[in-house]
Amino acid sequence: MAKVTSQDVAKLAGVSQSAVSRVFTPGASVSKEMADKVRQAADELGYRPNILARSLITGNSRIIGVVVSYLNNQFYPEILEILSAELRKRGYHPLMFMASENDDMDEVMSEILDYQVDGVVLLSVNMSSALAERCRAASIPVVLFNRYLEKDRFHAVTTNNYEGGSKVAELFIAAGHQRIGYIAGWEETSTQRDREKGFVDTLKKAGIELFDRQVGNYNYEETIQATRTMFTSQEYPDAVFFANDHMAFAALGVLEKELGLKVPEDVSVVGFDDVPLASWPVFNLTTVRQPAKSMVAETIRLLFDVDSNASQPIHIEIDGPLMIRNSAKVPQGYTS
Amino acid sequence: MAKVTSQDVAKLAGVSQSAVSRVFTPGASVSKEMADKVRQAADELGYRPNILARSLITGNSRIIGVVVSYLNNQFYPEILEILSAELRKRGYHPLMFMASENDDMDEVMSEILDYQVDGVVLLSVNMSSALAERCRAASIPVVLFNRYLEKDRFHAVTTNNYEGGSKVAELFIAAGHQRIGYIAGWEETSTQRDREKGFVDTLKKAGIELFDRQVGNYNYEETIQATRTMFTSQEYPDAVFFANDHMAFAALGVLEKELGLKVPEDVSVVGFDDVPLASWPVFNLTTVRQPAKSMVAETIRLLFDVDSNASQPIHIEIDGPLMIRNSAKVPQGYTS
Repeated sequence: MAKVTSQDVAKLAGVSQSAVSRVFTPGASVSKEMADKVRQAADELGYRPNILARSLITGNSRIIGVVVSYLNNQFYPEILEILSAELRKRGYHPLMFMASENDDMDEVMSEILDYQVDGVVLLSVNMSSALAERCRAASIPVVLFNRYLEKDRFHAVTTNNYEGGSKVAELFIAAGHQRIGYIAGWEETSTQRDREKGFVDTLKKAGIELFDRQVGNYNYEETIQATRTMFTSQEYPDAVFFANDHMAFAALGVLEKELGLKVPEDVSVVGFDDVPLASWPVFNLTTVRQPAKSMVAETIRLLFDVDSNASQPIHIEIDGPLMIRNSAKVPQGYTS
Repeated sequence: MAKVTSQDVAKLAGVSQSAVSRVFTPGASVSKEMADKVRQAADELGYRPNILARSLITGNSRIIGVVVSYLNNQFYPEILEILSAELRKRGYHPLMFMASENDDMDEVMSEILDYQVDGVVLLSVNMSSALAERCRAASIPVVLFNRYLEKDRFHAVTTNNYEGGSKVAELFIAAGHQRIGYIAGWEETSTQRDREKGFVDTLKKAGIELFDRQVGNYNYEETIQATRTMFTSQEYPDAVFFANDHMAFAALGVLEKELGLKVPEDVSVVGFDDVPLASWPVFNLTTVRQPAKSMVAETIRLLFDVDSNASQPIHIEIDGPLMIRNSAKVPQGYTS
């Protein structure tokens, strides 16, 4: 069978060849009527427009590589959903790469580059400097999402995590808490470091030292252990800040169901992220919101609207409001 | 700058050109040492292997289009994670398409076909027969995941939902429940229909009619309303089956926090899916497990190992065990 060309489609549809081309170019302007006519003719002839062939000419694959290390923290599915919808508006789609901590990130990045992606978003994944150079050499914009690297080799979008931690400390201080605990996330991450520093610095200014500190590594099971350790001492905290919501949920199970403590009467609990679960009545978690939509919008801007060769890496920090619910004591009339 | 070829890379690395080609062919056999040598030479020269160019020759893009309608039900992120990891083992990656119920699925499918995908997986998405023909014409295997269509136009992988519903009915009957309610999922879906039919048929055989039925549409907010409606009558059910876990979680908030009922003392609650949340101590939900790993394994098999032109559409149904936890009364010594 002879290969069907866009000319054949144009002829059958009774339109120009450039109209056919526009119909199959994501983001190009074309009327619904024209699109229907052309697609119908294309279907009839078995014509398959070819993004891949076009990408060889234009250099655009219309693919953004997205690397995710885990999806069981509800924050990431939410981001993936918003990111995917926003990319689609621009005629792009995310190609997913699951990479666990055990994966060789160099290998993962090689796989991504093999697809001639037009950009890369790293969700909660750290990246080596060798990889940085490789992407720079290939002129591919890379955005770190919810992380940044000390050496600022890449664009990064984060919440202002230091400020967020500070807001939690202010709430605990205002509520008169004295024995204040902290459950840390994975220590290698900027989110963990900044949230803790903002929290501890602000407590210190009020003359309060951390009463207890354990590590949950952003992991459900480890947080259950960390919470048990913290709350089986004779004296335990009357308020605990968890470096993300996912850990706070794990702890609430231990505190309420296992140890029979009342939240917030016996202990105030605050998280970070404001994932959809946080507002469910069974949790009703006071938490610092990561503004998912704004964070994704900034990510899109860094991918598409900033010349990655011309500019220095940009780190965007977005303010995250404290969402006051029922898991932490609140002084009357308190506003964060 | 002259284009760097695989020959240049072979020369610098001191290996054959076919070795270079193997290194950049996902799934091809190559030693770690060889791969390192070749990739280093490729980096040095700025060589970018080109899956897209190769796909024009071989016809393989190494991309599987995955259509998802929503990710807030934790079942889908879990599936996406497993599917992504399994595809990667075969040298493929999923290209994500978020499609809401309002989207024109014809348009979405056109976008997918534009990428020359090697297969399509539809997670909880229904598909029109026009699209079916289009995929068949393009010889692209399509697998419906967690859904099937009455007319069996596509391969489909589901849990045995009828049996699952039946198991829940058996538990309620054995526990002596008399006023049994059902909260339905989205009525257009095979999952909803089969789970309800298995549940209601088995109750009928025991001479029990459904006491109340409401519709939650697999939606969190709608389920909150449906639960309120069901439980603000003078007489309310003493056991309710929710067509998925996501709805059961919504209901637990209403029952325990809002209406002050005890689960399972006042009312037994059972869900369907066994998402990770179900085993969290705050929920401890009795539910029918959808065996995610087996379902993904069958999906992969249908995508890669079945000749889609030669065979009739295959519907794989996998048995889902009842996971007994603490949200429903259990007669002593009961085994499902």
